[in-house]
Amino acid sequence: MSDKRIPVLEIFGPTVQGEGMVIGRKTMFVRTAGCDYRCSWCDSAFTWDGSAKDDIRLMTPDEVLAELRGLGGDAFAHVTLSGGNPALLPQLGGLIDLLHAEGLGVALETQGSRWQDWFLRIDELTLSPKPPSSGMDTDWERLDDIVRRLTEGRRNYSLKVVVFDDADLDYAASVHARYPEATFYVQAGNGNLRETDRDRMLPYLLERYEWLIGRTMADSRLNRVHVLPQLHAWVWGNKKGV
Amino acid sequence: MSDKRIPVLEIFGPTVQGEGMVIGRKTMFVRTAGCDYRCSWCDSAFTWDGSAKDDIRLMTPDEVLAELRGLGGDAFAHVTLSGGNPALLPQLGGLIDLLHAEGLGVALETQGSRWQDWFLRIDELTLSPKPPSSGMDTDWERLDDIVRRLTEGRRNYSLKVVVFDDADLDYAASVHARYPEATFYVQAGNGNLRETDRDRMLPYLLERYEWLIGRTMADSRLNRVHVLPQLHAWVWGNKKGV
Ligand code: SF4
Ligand code: SF4
Repeated sequence: MSDKRIPVLEIFGPTVQGEGMVIGRKTMFVRTAGCDYRCSWCDSAFTWDGSAKDDIRLMTPDEVLAELRGLGGDAFAHVTLSGGNPALLPQLGGLIDLLHAEGLGVALETQGSRWQDWFLRIDELTLSPKPPSSGMDTDWERLDDIVRRLTEGRRNYSLKVVVFDDADLDYAASVHARYPEATFYVQAGNGNLRETDRDRMLPYLLERYEWLIGRTMADSRLNRVHVLPQLHAWVWGNKKGV
Repeated sequence: MSDKRIPVLEIFGPTVQGEGMVIGRKTMFVRTAGCDYRCSWCDSAFTWDGSAKDDIRLMTPDEVLAELRGLGGDAFAHVTLSGGNPALLPQLGGLIDLLHAEGLGVALETQGSRWQDWFLRIDELTLSPKPPSSGMDTDWERLDDIVRRLTEGRRNYSLKVVVFDDADLDYAASVHARYPEATFYVQAGNGNLRETDRDRMLPYLLERYEWLIGRTMADSRLNRVHVLPQLHAWVWGNKKGV
């Protein structure tokens, strides 16, 4: 059975989803370990850089659900699966089905470097390909294939690009042009991951959000977009587990 | 023709939608004059209290579109109609059709005290019934009827309740229980409408948002909800026209 276990780093909530297509939604979080990327500004590097490897627990879906109920009781109806890249884990399908059987909605975010058949069972799937500032290269054929399958499956999915600079904004515009039918989000990047004092963090986050708003408003390539901050960073700074 | 004209108080944008189901969306705003409510904490009281009556312009749909294009050029694809209560204006249907003919999406917010047949042509309709702190009474039969028609018409609509205190939260829970199928938002109320300095405003808005998150997270009546701030107030304080 151990091949069915899920490498879990954090389970927390209920809290609000701070980003993207489900922003504001009351949700629980399950963060899985492992990523096939190494983004320069990764805010979850502990999921793949070895620094938290002793915290990884190999859990069955039942164990994950029991921990979710222990934390949230009956005061939640939604679970967000994040990473790392949870799309590395074929065995997540069992957890997704168990959560659905409990009447819970399930959201998931991935960079779009891997397909899993259980993508077709996610209620809100965010594909977040990484812009040049990440240092990563996008596998466009893979992403095309994922978008095509989600579209054919009439799934509720969106694309989201984190933007730090003008090169990232050009990248965002090219993603939006490539998949014009998909709901599209640009998100102000947080380059200040070491600051733990929220009140020092806020002016920086506001400045970055205002910069992105200004750029997006003036850009006719980016008309059908949503521009969002990371709400949780505004409220909790870089604190983990909230 | 003058009966087809629309009483307009503000046209501005492009900017981001700061609230609710379209939060973050790049949009233009058209604010109409007149409201059948008198909410104690109304942040748009100038639309109905007479203080801006000399600024009201009676405009045709073509004139509104020309002004939108003058401000936004081709750098927008979405228009938000707000008030006051734009649902007081049967003649808005002509503007909605003109905007659609231009390929623009149209969102609208109303408290849900009046029905208009053109509700069925709004792309994102927000019904925002007012909680006890507003001093207003909800006409539940009217709201039931509006929700029923939107549901039968398979429209994309949501409910949103602004929350200032625990009595408002109870009201929100009762609205959510009455229309469990509708996407539901609670929004932290802004009781600090005179403050124009953003940096003094932010700690207050954050405290209010954190309060609402805390209350909602602990409340099993409010599981399938989104908890959102007013992003525009965080970015621009109480400044008008942004
Ligand atoms: S894809 Fe996500 S988790 Fe992986 S390195 Fe990049 S930001 Fe970090
Ligand atoms: S319904 Fe809206 S515009 Fe009318 S008084 Fe209340 S808050 Fe103001």
